[in-house]
Amino acid sequence: MINSPKNGANTMQTKVKNMKLADIYKSLRQDLRVVEQELSNSVRSDHTELNRSSAHLLEAGGKRLRPVFTLLAGQFGYYDIERLKKVAVPLELIHMSSLVHDDVIDDAQTRRGRPTVKSKWDSRVAMYTGDYLFARALSIATQVEDPRIHQVLSRSIQEMCKGEIEQIRDFYNPDQGLIRYLQRIKRKTALLMAVSCQLGAMVASADEAVVRRLRLYGYYVGMAFQITDDVLDLIGDEKELGKPAGSDLRQGNITLPVIYLLHYGSEEDRRRLRDYLSRRRTDVGSEDVLPGQQLEEALSIGIEDVLERVRHSGGIPYAEEMSRRYLDKALVCLEGLPSGQARDSLLFIARFVGKRSY
Amino acid sequence: MINSPKNGANTMQTKVKNMKLADIYKSLRQDLRVVEQELSNSVRSDHTELNRSSAHLLEAGGKRLRPVFTLLAGQFGYYDIERLKKVAVPLELIHMSSLVHDDVIDDAQTRRGRPTVKSKWDSRVAMYTGDYLFARALSIATQVEDPRIHQVLSRSIQEMCKGEIEQIRDFYNPDQGLIRYLQRIKRKTALLMAVSCQLGAMVASADEAVVRRLRLYGYYVGMAFQITDDVLDLIGDEKELGKPAGSDLRQGNITLPVIYLLHYGSEEDRRRLRDYLSRRRTDVGSEDVLPGQQLEEALSIGIEDVLERVRHSGGIPYAEEMSRRYLDKALVCLEGLPSGQARDSLLFIARFVGKRSY
Repeated sequence: MINSPKNGANTMQTKVKNMKLADIYKSLRQDLRVVEQELSNSVRSDHTELNRSSAHLLEAGGKRLRPVFTLLAGQFGYYDIERLKKVAVPLELIHMSSLVHDDVIDDAQTRRGRPTVKSKWDSRVAMYTGDYLFARALSIATQVEDPRIHQVLSRSIQEMCKGEIEQIRDFYNPDQGLIRYLQRIKRKTALLMAVSCQLGAMVASADEAVVRRLRLYGYYVGMAFQITDDVLDLIGDEKELGKPAGSDLRQGNITLPVIYLLHYGSEEDRRRLRDYLSRRRTDVGSEDVLPGQQLEEALSIGIEDVLERVRHSGGIPYAEEMSRRYLDKALVCLEGLPSGQARDSLLFIARFVGKRSY
Repeated sequence: MINSPKNGANTMQTKVKNMKLADIYKSLRQDLRVVEQELSNSVRSDHTELNRSSAHLLEAGGKRLRPVFTLLAGQFGYYDIERLKKVAVPLELIHMSSLVHDDVIDDAQTRRGRPTVKSKWDSRVAMYTGDYLFARALSIATQVEDPRIHQVLSRSIQEMCKGEIEQIRDFYNPDQGLIRYLQRIKRKTALLMAVSCQLGAMVASADEAVVRRLRLYGYYVGMAFQITDDVLDLIGDEKELGKPAGSDLRQGNITLPVIYLLHYGSEEDRRRLRDYLSRRRTDVGSEDVLPGQQLEEALSIGIEDVLERVRHSGGIPYAEEMSRRYLDKALVCLEGLPSGQARDSLLFIARFVGKRSY
């Protein structure tokens, strides 16, 4: 299966220059349709509320990036869509499930421009819809007779939960460094992308070395993806983001550019940011103690000032550079893989993730 | 393995007359200690918050009824504690996980006299602790190489989620009958007890007929258990319950005695109850619209009157009778099983569940 022609990164990059993201989806169109159908079947039950809340989530769409990774990784082995869909669908369901639970935590009213399950029903229905999708995902995966797959999936969920709890613990916490941030986004985002690539290759019985390489590729792309997301949250347009810019920091989520300012910002910038964080940490020590409207307004003046400081601290180019370095590592992983359309597509996706931030 | 001596219910019942619940735990002591150790290991991680919140849950104890069922059921086949613990532990973790998520929903401050994870940390940590325990449970179960087991477990979680969502949907809803109630408690409680018996026997490679019988036994006992729980909530002592009597109805959860009153109560009783429910349904249509302190007090006067009516409507003996009938069915299931200590213990547990209500 492995017959790597040792193409260098340059050759690869020239090849995909004229590719478009739509081309990748086009090449996978038929099989993505199978996945979509299976996703839709998998959440259809005899249960009215669950049907409605799950269908609502499905229809909200999304890039289906995890199934795309799985299908592309499957092309490095014995490609069989009937087997691959049994992991592609669980991966997307786990992703959806984590989004529903995030929305409960973030008190989000909309996602991708549509009302969240939490806002359309309530947070109790959202919690159990998430639980249901988790269980559904693992249940579908058990149809593949390979216990390694079930173990990888359930372990990923455990790690994702740790990431979420870490994020909550570190809300508004000024005493955190780079390593803590990277650990958190690894668990929150990069791991499931890594696993999407890994399991696609594993189900297709690709060589172990290929499986490892693809997992690593997914991990690096995932890290870059989340760093880029965090940058976009600061500099993006409210309309495109579907939420006010700076939402992360408003909620207490300390991202890479903010960490940069905390460590390398001017004395005045650091003082302002620490002041703001410690005030918020005291005010919103518990979700149950919500500050009144007036206090909220006073604080929101503080946040705009702090956001401006973050945007001009040098933290944005610092984060962009780090994202680029992760993408470079992803490209190195691809170099050792057999050339062909699958590899070109993965290369293109890595570059696309990088471009999102410009 | 099967060699049923066709003992009648009477012979069986005489045998266990002098048994105590403590005897059952004593006979399983060594293996329950193994389960307890494994439970404790299984939630120990490199993660401080998860360690603390999970350990807090574990220490809260509980009857470990599900592992007890698993171990007893395992005695009907090739008993191997090393294999049995791989399902007993997941079953208890799933149970614990559902309790944590219930506490988020119920806004419970204490459970079994100890502060809940939700109140000690917050509902966000509680949600992810629950998610983590679900995933941990399924991950441990994958150590047994029998995909049927993983499927049974993940399907149970799905059904439990449906049960929870049904309960939320039917909060304060006066237009529900017996079937809806039974369906709900089946999913909420009886199913996991059924599965605890089923998987113990399955892991021990017991005969299929024995596995089915034990599952059915667990289901009937589980139904009786929940009906009894619902009765105790109405007539129990606040100290013993660890919460005010009538908590279910206060939260909108319509249990069997209330359904009885809704259908068979006097005209005046039914009117008062329906009035109360429809007022609450409007007031607390959404969790976000909490009535003010004053309104809450006005309504709490209403609830005491309604609770008294439920207690004297004939709904309590009706529910007790139904619980008894489920227990009788459980005993019939046992009749077909090989006699011995395991069967005696299961018989005793069934009778113990029945006695709780007197």
